[in-house]
Amino acid sequence: MGRKIAMLGSGFIGRFYADSIHSQRSKDRIVSIYSRREESAQKFAADYETPHWTTAMEEAINHPEVDVVCIALPNNLHEAAVMACCKAKKAVICTKPLGRNAEEAKRMLEAVEAAGIFHGYMEDLVYTPKFSKALQSVQAGALGRILWAKSRETHPGPHSEWFWDKEQAGGGCILDLGCHCVEISRSFIGKDIKPVEVMCWADTQVKPIDAEDHAIALVRYENGAIGQFEVSWTFRGGLDLRDEVMGTEGTIWLNNFLRTGFDMFTTGKGADYVAEKAESNTGWLFPVGDELNDLGYNHMFADMFNAIEQNKAPRESFYDGYVVNAILDAAYRSAASKLWEPVKLDIWRGLEGVAKGASLVDYDEHHYLIKEEKTHFGSTKLILKEKQSGKIIEVTR
Amino acid sequence: MGRKIAMLGSGFIGRFYADSIHSQRSKDRIVSIYSRREESAQKFAADYETPHWTTAMEEAINHPEVDVVCIALPNNLHEAAVMACCKAKKAVICTKPLGRNAEEAKRMLEAVEAAGIFHGYMEDLVYTPKFSKALQSVQAGALGRILWAKSRETHPGPHSEWFWDKEQAGGGCILDLGCHCVEISRSFIGKDIKPVEVMCWADTQVKPIDAEDHAIALVRYENGAIGQFEVSWTFRGGLDLRDEVMGTEGTIWLNNFLRTGFDMFTTGKGADYVAEKAESNTGWLFPVGDELNDLGYNHMFADMFNAIEQNKAPRESFYDGYVVNAILDAAYRSAASKLWEPVKLDIWRGLEGVAKGASLVDYDEHHYLIKEEKTHFGSTKLILKEKQSGKIIEVTR
Amino acid sequence: MGRKIAMLGSGFIGRFYADSIHSQRSKDRIVSIYSRREESAQKFAADYETPHWTTAMEEAINHPEVDVVCIALPNNLHEAAVMACCKAKKAVICTKPLGRNAEEAKRMLEAVEAAGIFHGYMEDLVYTPKFSKALQSVQAGALGRILWAKSRETHPGPHSEWFWDKEQAGGGCILDLGCHCVEISRSFIGKDIKPVEVMCWADTQVKPIDAEDHAIALVRYENGAIGQFEVSWTFRGGLDLRDEVMGTEGTIWLNNFLRTGFDMFTTGKGADYVAEKAESNTGWLFPVGDELNDLGYNHMFADMFNAIEQNKAPRESFYDGYVVNAILDAAYRSAASKLWEPVKLDIWRGLEGVAKGASLVDYDEHHYLIKEEKTHFGSTKLILKEKQSGKIIEVTR
Amino acid sequence: MGRKIAMLGSGFIGRFYADSIHSQRSKDRIVSIYSRREESAQKFAADYETPHWTTAMEEAINHPEVDVVCIALPNNLHEAAVMACCKAKKAVICTKPLGRNAEEAKRMLEAVEAAGIFHGYMEDLVYTPKFSKALQSVQAGALGRILWAKSRETHPGPHSEWFWDKEQAGGGCILDLGCHCVEISRSFIGKDIKPVEVMCWADTQVKPIDAEDHAIALVRYENGAIGQFEVSWTFRGGLDLRDEVMGTEGTIWLNNFLRTGFDMFTTGKGADYVAEKAESNTGWLFPVGDELNDLGYNHMFADMFNAIEQNKAPRESFYDGYVVNAILDAAYRSAASKLWEPVKLDIWRGLEGVAKGASLVDYDEHHYLIKEEKTHFGSTKLILKEKQSGKIIEVTR
Repeated sequence: MGRKIAMLGSGFIGRFYADSIHSQRSKDRIVSIYSRREESAQKFAADYETPHWTTAMEEAINHPEVDVVCIALPNNLHEAAVMACCKAKKAVICTKPLGRNAEEAKRMLEAVEAAGIFHGYMEDLVYTPKFSKALQSVQAGALGRILWAKSRETHPGPHSEWFWDKEQAGGGCILDLGCHCVEISRSFIGKDIKPVEVMCWADTQVKPIDAEDHAIALVRYENGAIGQFEVSWTFRGGLDLRDEVMGTEGTIWLNNFLRTGFDMFTTGKGADYVAEKAESNTGWLFPVGDELNDLGYNHMFADMFNAIEQNKAPRESFYDGYVVNAILDAAYRSAASKLWEPVKLDIWRGLEGVAKGASLVDYDEHHYLIKEEKTHFGSTKLILKEKQSGKIIEVTR
Repeated sequence: MGRKIAMLGSGFIGRFYADSIHSQRSKDRIVSIYSRREESAQKFAADYETPHWTTAMEEAINHPEVDVVCIALPNNLHEAAVMACCKAKKAVICTKPLGRNAEEAKRMLEAVEAAGIFHGYMEDLVYTPKFSKALQSVQAGALGRILWAKSRETHPGPHSEWFWDKEQAGGGCILDLGCHCVEISRSFIGKDIKPVEVMCWADTQVKPIDAEDHAIALVRYENGAIGQFEVSWTFRGGLDLRDEVMGTEGTIWLNNFLRTGFDMFTTGKGADYVAEKAESNTGWLFPVGDELNDLGYNHMFADMFNAIEQNKAPRESFYDGYVVNAILDAAYRSAASKLWEPVKLDIWRGLEGVAKGASLVDYDEHHYLIKEEKTHFGSTKLILKEKQSGKIIEVTR
Repeated sequence: MGRKIAMLGSGFIGRFYADSIHSQRSKDRIVSIYSRREESAQKFAADYETPHWTTAMEEAINHPEVDVVCIALPNNLHEAAVMACCKAKKAVICTKPLGRNAEEAKRMLEAVEAAGIFHGYMEDLVYTPKFSKALQSVQAGALGRILWAKSRETHPGPHSEWFWDKEQAGGGCILDLGCHCVEISRSFIGKDIKPVEVMCWADTQVKPIDAEDHAIALVRYENGAIGQFEVSWTFRGGLDLRDEVMGTEGTIWLNNFLRTGFDMFTTGKGADYVAEKAESNTGWLFPVGDELNDLGYNHMFADMFNAIEQNKAPRESFYDGYVVNAILDAAYRSAASKLWEPVKLDIWRGLEGVAKGASLVDYDEHHYLIKEEKTHFGSTKLILKEKQSGKIIEVTR
Repeated sequence: MGRKIAMLGSGFIGRFYADSIHSQRSKDRIVSIYSRREESAQKFAADYETPHWTTAMEEAINHPEVDVVCIALPNNLHEAAVMACCKAKKAVICTKPLGRNAEEAKRMLEAVEAAGIFHGYMEDLVYTPKFSKALQSVQAGALGRILWAKSRETHPGPHSEWFWDKEQAGGGCILDLGCHCVEISRSFIGKDIKPVEVMCWADTQVKPIDAEDHAIALVRYENGAIGQFEVSWTFRGGLDLRDEVMGTEGTIWLNNFLRTGFDMFTTGKGADYVAEKAESNTGWLFPVGDELNDLGYNHMFADMFNAIEQNKAPRESFYDGYVVNAILDAAYRSAASKLWEPVKLDIWRGLEGVAKGASLVDYDEHHYLIKEEKTHFGSTKLILKEKQSGKIIEVTR
């Protein structure tokens, strides 16, 4: 038997979640929908054959059939929804970011743990099939020691009006998109490794809004690895969703959206076909095959619901959401102060005092190896460092 | 309630199917496994928690809990399995190709129709998310009239020994890989459009086998469109799985395997990681995120099982399998005769007598438009044909 | 001291050649321009600072300063121009295709050889930097024995009106584009290997013209290798120029135009910028960095002029042009007869009687190796063939 | 008549320059080679048919035939070489970076201007064909107002031993690679726009050296645009050379090395072929067609020598080299101080006091437009901001 879900929120993301939960041959079903607007709740109920709809949030949560609550509401409403789930002792999964800041996120984390309920943090982009397979390779050592992990998410701006309002959203593109990127980098570097400090540039370059519409940040981890995010609501050309990882023994490049092996050119004369989310509907277009699967939704819900059934923790919990919020808080402080700002983590459950990675490679008793390369002539050229003198020499074999 | 499946065959493809049927949050379950070898049946049953295993095929088919039979056997065993399903009046879905030739396929088609049972043809590659979305675009007219549809599948050779034996397999790479390519092209061109004749080159260029290990063919359809397939068991570099479509108003390029937005470089020093199906495990590798989904298995089973539940035909039935076999038969005859060979279709349920597409574009009363282009200088250059004289002229505006 | 060139023809290709000849720090100069139209000759002379212009072809050829004649005329005018060069005993280089058919080409070849003048065939696409480096790799054995070499050139149709007129052009896209593709395939397979027979499909699918606007052909070489070309004037999306080579030990994919590492998106609001040769000027565009160099013109002229100075043959001579024409003739015959048509080569200077390549790989005394692969479980799976019985077996180590 | 060049330095870069200067049909010639080692000078002279060689730098510079001096020496020797050219009143072109710091660069700039000699800064990567065409598009407005320009250059470390020695090189990968990236970003943003401040992270993550082997920096320009560089000597997989530009109306992505339309797979069994600069010689390789041209050398020398002949300034002069050094100095200070550090420009010849770009788009009298998009249902959704209240609203048409 599958899960019975109450969906809180019937907007863009709520519908995306519903499409995924009901997709393919799923045994899970949404049994109650809550929306602030009656018209919207009714339409959702009709579209997804949801037996119960309501404009009273607690009614959905407390619905006797419901065993999991899925929060798909604007950021400023997450906390109240989580508290209601705690009261009802229902398993809760919450969309990203968890809070508008670490303080909110911490209160939510402490509340669900005090209530003893299941809690999942719906960071879908660490559940994409590409990311999961890349992470396995990294964890199997295929890239050696991780030095740098970047995630970039940029597009021409979000769909719903509340994102553009700083009070409801809690911030701009850093909060909206940076939360994805931070968790991606953190996963590649290792979730046990402590994020230490953040340097962030942010600006409102284009849009007539109070929040930032473009930001770039570096996150330094205790072991010397660097996380990076590049986020923007001003990108032209569609949805740019790319990750890059550098390790001592390898490299990974993931492209999740604009170049995935599907290229289409159309003059537009054939029909008034409009490609999803593209900024144009003629010329070269780059559709994604199966957004629900490729963006990680299917695997995310599978992990969440399996974890509930197996009584174990999901890959992403409110604790992860809290760590992400703490890193983003530091990014906001840094953008304002123009300084590297420390990541403040009252709660930290990973490793402490990890030394900076090092990998001196001995060439022989007296030398370190700096570089070895084949020359055009087929011989081997070595750049070595004398251990005692520190002098750098070149040897060709 | 989901489907209860008997799986016939516990080899590479049977396991792939089982992985897909049980994937994510599926409500469907394999309840019986038949294998010719007891050891293999037992291992499968253990791995997939299958309650019943047997080395007697009919026992699996007739198992009281089973409501769908999934044939994942070598080509020479399909017909007997289908006949057993007819006898048992159980819904049957069969792996590709349906038969070793059209004669076998036709007998199977006639048998399932006479028995009145559900029949699905498991051509997974017309269920890949990319293909499905591309097909929607084509059907919506985004490419105009389709002129040419090519599908290419090449790799270093199949996994199991029976593929390499002409008697068991019925042929070489034409039958093994061409069946995919033919149905892909046919779908883009239109399944109602009659395939008329085939020209095929085939050779055994590398492998010490009787069957062909490399072939290229053209399939002419009644409306003048051309299907093309390129298949080989001698390709080096992994699994090359690409489709290309040309229409009067657009182009589609699909790359399903080697370039899907996942690039990894590894020196191999980090760990003895082996990438799936790749020919090497160091250097640049191109993994696929989620093979089960990206190769179409998930959507194929969803279509099959939904169709059973909704009492309708699946997207691919034994009729399609029969048409594919008829085209492949013509390809084999052509490879031998070196002539264009007619496609022999005793059973044809599509359109008849479709005229060749034409699209004369009037420029004005007296001229057809051949081409219009912008010059370097910003003016418009027209190539026109005078309707009366047939003379071709150039006009710059 | 550089070369002094007479350019015959001031149209699109003549100007492209001139741009290349005068490019960068070249020491070569065009000293005379012949055009059929005075206005056009004068404009060319002004644009390229050419000291002498004329509407009398022989005047340009015989101009005392001229030491090389470059033919950039419509196909039907090549022969007369070549004959005039023979008379004047001037070195001649001719654009592609050499003749409208092999008969014309053969007369030109015999004439230049009788006259004892230098003759170069300007097949630029075997001079592109990518092609040259790929060919070196192939010749160094990086791909093993070559099995198949495909070249594809498709675009929305040529620039000048004479191309669309069958009499002047001698044919449609087979002659216009196929000449490139044939020489590319032939070079990869080996210019010493005899082309034996051709199977070609051709049709006029879209344009209101007499000649073909779409064709696909296979060329079988004596050693069993297959050349393939795909050519069209009906492609939508720009200029598609790709080559693929399969060998027993490797693969090469070249993309010369639409995907070369330069991606641009523009809304078109910024400026009325028009990208060269693209079919649209908004959305995603894929410019080529340096067309003159990337299409091979610079390296082609360097080879031609260096060969003249060093008194040796260029990489491409009229003999190559003749072989190409002979293959295209067979393609035209095949498109009409629907049969594999022999390539008629009265003149053949390569190898004779080359046996079909074979590469039986011994596994041990009693078995041939068919395939070796790593399984998921890390073991090695072998597909072997028993030498005596011919039986195929599977062994896992 | 072409230029007569004295080459100072016979190492990797000197040979690369010589290959380019003598390439194709060039009229320019190297007439004197200076190397610190006699053996190396002699070998260069033999390889490039250079009539004169010497181990005395001034002898090469003062050679009577020489009219241009090309400095291809380690960073710490640039200044002395430039001063010698000033004394000899010979035109000078210098490799990158100009100085080890802005102080050195400023002295060189002031010296060549005082001497009244031609001076060119050999920043080849702003001469690549792709970059040049991209820059034209940007300057034509195809991308609107430039918001961000990133350049990334990473590889497994330089060829010669002096790079790894901080005293001779003046720094690590920031100086070696950052100089390219800074000038690329600056060109896209506009060379007249003042670079204001820099934030840089740098670390020695892998190599046993004193200098940094990985760094990331942001450069803020006066108009609010952001330049970014990512540089490393620890990247695995070859030479990663990519640029990205975001503007209000478009996007450009350039990939100069690892993905340019040339893919090769080789088992390595065919031959012991070694691909240039790749880290491996089997598996998937990505060669570049024509490094000399694609890396900008040919176009750079053409611009330099043409400028000398036409008595005008080249695209890149010592002034540009000085500005680049000043930005890199700020990057080094920032990496140490962890603060945004001002760019100190004693000499600045661009615009002053440029205001931050802004682009409020009026929707109607009372609203600004934030975003306009097509919904799934074909209607138009607008996100607007009320001018008076600042409230954000959503309207669907």
